[in-house]
Amino acid sequence: MAAPSVHALTTDLYQLTMLQAYLEHGMQAPATFELFTRRLPPNRNFLIAAGLEAALDYLEHLRFEDADIEYLESLGRFSSEFLDYLREFRFSGSVDALPEGTPFFANEPLLRVHATLPEAQLVETRLLNLVQLPTAVASKAARVVVAADGRAVIDFGLRHAHGADASLAASRAAYLAGVQATSNVAAGQTFGIPVAGTMAHSFVQAHDREREAFRHFMATFPTAALLVDTYDVEAGMDTVIELVRDAGGPAPTAVRLDSGDLAAHARRTRRQLDEAGMMQVQIIASGNLDEQEIARLITDGAPIDSFGVGAALAVSEDAPCLDVVYKLVAYDGRGRMKLAAQKTTLPDPKQFFRQFDGAAATHDVLGLADEQSEGQPLLEPVMRNGKRLPASRRSLDEIRTHAERSLAMLPARLRSLEPATPPYRVEVSVALGEAAERTRRRLQEQ
Amino acid sequence: MAAPSVHALTTDLYQLTMLQAYLEHGMQAPATFELFTRRLPPNRNFLIAAGLEAALDYLEHLRFEDADIEYLESLGRFSSEFLDYLREFRFSGSVDALPEGTPFFANEPLLRVHATLPEAQLVETRLLNLVQLPTAVASKAARVVVAADGRAVIDFGLRHAHGADASLAASRAAYLAGVQATSNVAAGQTFGIPVAGTMAHSFVQAHDREREAFRHFMATFPTAALLVDTYDVEAGMDTVIELVRDAGGPAPTAVRLDSGDLAAHARRTRRQLDEAGMMQVQIIASGNLDEQEIARLITDGAPIDSFGVGAALAVSEDAPCLDVVYKLVAYDGRGRMKLAAQKTTLPDPKQFFRQFDGAAATHDVLGLADEQSEGQPLLEPVMRNGKRLPASRRSLDEIRTHAERSLAMLPARLRSLEPATPPYRVEVSVALGEAAERTRRRLQEQ
Repeated sequence: MAAPSVHALTTDLYQLTMLQAYLEHGMQAPATFELFTRRLPPNRNFLIAAGLEAALDYLEHLRFEDADIEYLESLGRFSSEFLDYLREFRFSGSVDALPEGTPFFANEPLLRVHATLPEAQLVETRLLNLVQLPTAVASKAARVVVAADGRAVIDFGLRHAHGADASLAASRAAYLAGVQATSNVAAGQTFGIPVAGTMAHSFVQAHDREREAFRHFMATFPTAALLVDTYDVEAGMDTVIELVRDAGGPAPTAVRLDSGDLAAHARRTRRQLDEAGMMQVQIIASGNLDEQEIARLITDGAPIDSFGVGAALAVSEDAPCLDVVYKLVAYDGRGRMKLAAQKTTLPDPKQFFRQFDGAAATHDVLGLADEQSEGQPLLEPVMRNGKRLPASRRSLDEIRTHAERSLAMLPARLRSLEPATPPYRVEVSVALGEAAERTRRRLQEQ
Repeated sequence: MAAPSVHALTTDLYQLTMLQAYLEHGMQAPATFELFTRRLPPNRNFLIAAGLEAALDYLEHLRFEDADIEYLESLGRFSSEFLDYLREFRFSGSVDALPEGTPFFANEPLLRVHATLPEAQLVETRLLNLVQLPTAVASKAARVVVAADGRAVIDFGLRHAHGADASLAASRAAYLAGVQATSNVAAGQTFGIPVAGTMAHSFVQAHDREREAFRHFMATFPTAALLVDTYDVEAGMDTVIELVRDAGGPAPTAVRLDSGDLAAHARRTRRQLDEAGMMQVQIIASGNLDEQEIARLITDGAPIDSFGVGAALAVSEDAPCLDVVYKLVAYDGRGRMKLAAQKTTLPDPKQFFRQFDGAAATHDVLGLADEQSEGQPLLEPVMRNGKRLPASRRSLDEIRTHAERSLAMLPARLRSLEPATPPYRVEVSVALGEAAERTRRRLQEQ
């Protein structure tokens, strides 16, 4: 693959104005920022970390091109000293991160960035932008996979994704959370995700008769899946069965249903197939599916073998934005926090520790980065001096396995589609609580 | 700007398998597809067309690279004849489109693509992917702008957008629908949209005292906007006012409030400013704003001059996916339609005609492309033989003006945030109704 696109100007204007002010006032001491979510969306019992690989690529390759500097100069508000600084800008800091595929909860950092204040500040917007979508989609996909209860889920989301790079990020995130394949060819090419597909209604409609359409498709791809609901599902299935019998050849791997009462259609279709001795032909369902609809179909006993899921996955439709933030927690050796209403943050560099009872996670403890706590610390070093640590690199399939194992360790109530009662517990450690109180007092005394 | 990225493999696998089947069976007669939405989201009285410029760029530049062909070959399911066809693939068809910025409704085509069946089929997925997000965001932005009732709306959505190219598309779409500026520097660079920004809480927190933070920022940017809610809004405002008095210099252009009871804070802040004789300092509000919240603040009399809107705009949060489809309406000279439950489509190439009473639009008539109807036909020729028609190119500011004027012509009830009663009427013309009936009968007789 080519070097990743850098998009240095994919940032908020205020990052650049703040940077110039930091530099003019000599504020280049070390700072620590943490990226976390303030709350889970209503329909999520957990989130799955994703997008960190892209975030680290960005940090490693961030450069301002001449055209970027020229544009900034044209705005007439930046000093030439500052533009020279940007010309030479490299991210040279450290990052600790939650490995992709790890479940996490509100207030737990996904990324802890430690660098000079200007370096750590500048990268805020793009880090949030890069981490949010994959995390939202992986978290949604985990629910869809849970709902499918062992049946395959196929990502049909490309047309609904927010562009080409969003579709890649979404397909990768869905796959790492347990989705089995994608219709997105570019995602297959880029990440090696298995690609899958059937046929569209237009293929059937372009033929004067449905029979001719099926015959043509089977001639080209003898075992490909056929879409049987363009006109009438039962008649379409009769046609498929006749064609297979007449040809005496191989049957399609599957038929797809995309409209109407999917449970009723699937039952009738299954009966038609079984009566024809075509037990091996599977049924794929699609059409505005999400985890709730999949759960209903399964509860209803619909004999569906795999589910194609589109919009719900591609944009995490019921929670397309997570409330992710990137907050300064320390500068120049002192803890920093915000006291604004409902948005108060906890100061100081943090770590969090997952607590287990045997193989089962019971709760997490959010503590200080340097405290010794029981449990498994989840943030790991991934970048030092602006360079990736090779040990932190994992293949997509390793991440997928890690996600599956980590999810299985969560309390079973979290894997319900309904809100978990009680929700997963995240405790603040005594040391962190005391640090917060000290910082709050210091700020209020000013 | 560089040539646009082509992303030929940003497509669903089934487009490629269908193409191979079409080619093997000599199905290369002319086809017409239409891109439209089957229904408006519950919270939309209209949609605003956007993304067509990017869609046409894609059609004009679509090429398969060697690496693409190699990847497809590695899948082991495509013939070498087919891969050779893709190597030479160019889109050579015609497109008629709804100009960007035009309001439209369910079942009205945004794009009508006419080409050989394989060419028109292949581009389905990416066209949907390119048109959906900008249309969703422009439509959402129009509501936000209506709610702001003449006050400025600033796009703060970059961090919540689904990646870098999604953020560009969203910022452009928001601007064309009436948003005044963006925090997204890359959108300023790419499209010439005015960029704007204030400061972040981290800037204040990095200083030991808020006063020092304001002093530093004002020293670097004397009239920049200051964020006053990091600790306590009233005390923050006292500090701003003292600093301006002490310096005897220029005041900030604005102060920003980002948390808590924005109406109460704005009233108190306005009073403080006015009592200090700083009437010209404006108040910017932000923090999880959407059109409903903005309308509430304005109804509540909050003296806010501009609104920074993030997630709601960036992903059209309450309707992040539109139900856009791309359907075959004619092949080889015959109308085509789908009869599937709830998803029946109308056959034949179409045009639609906006009907006016004076300057006010009253309703639309959806008819056949070649019929003579009253009213203003809205689809215009934009591409012939694979080449853009120069007359169809418009600058972003022209599109923005067109959007503003076209929206002003809609019945006033549509510009309410509540569902319009009755909704805008779209009639099917007699000729189109008869064509649909003929096609349905033909299909049912088979």
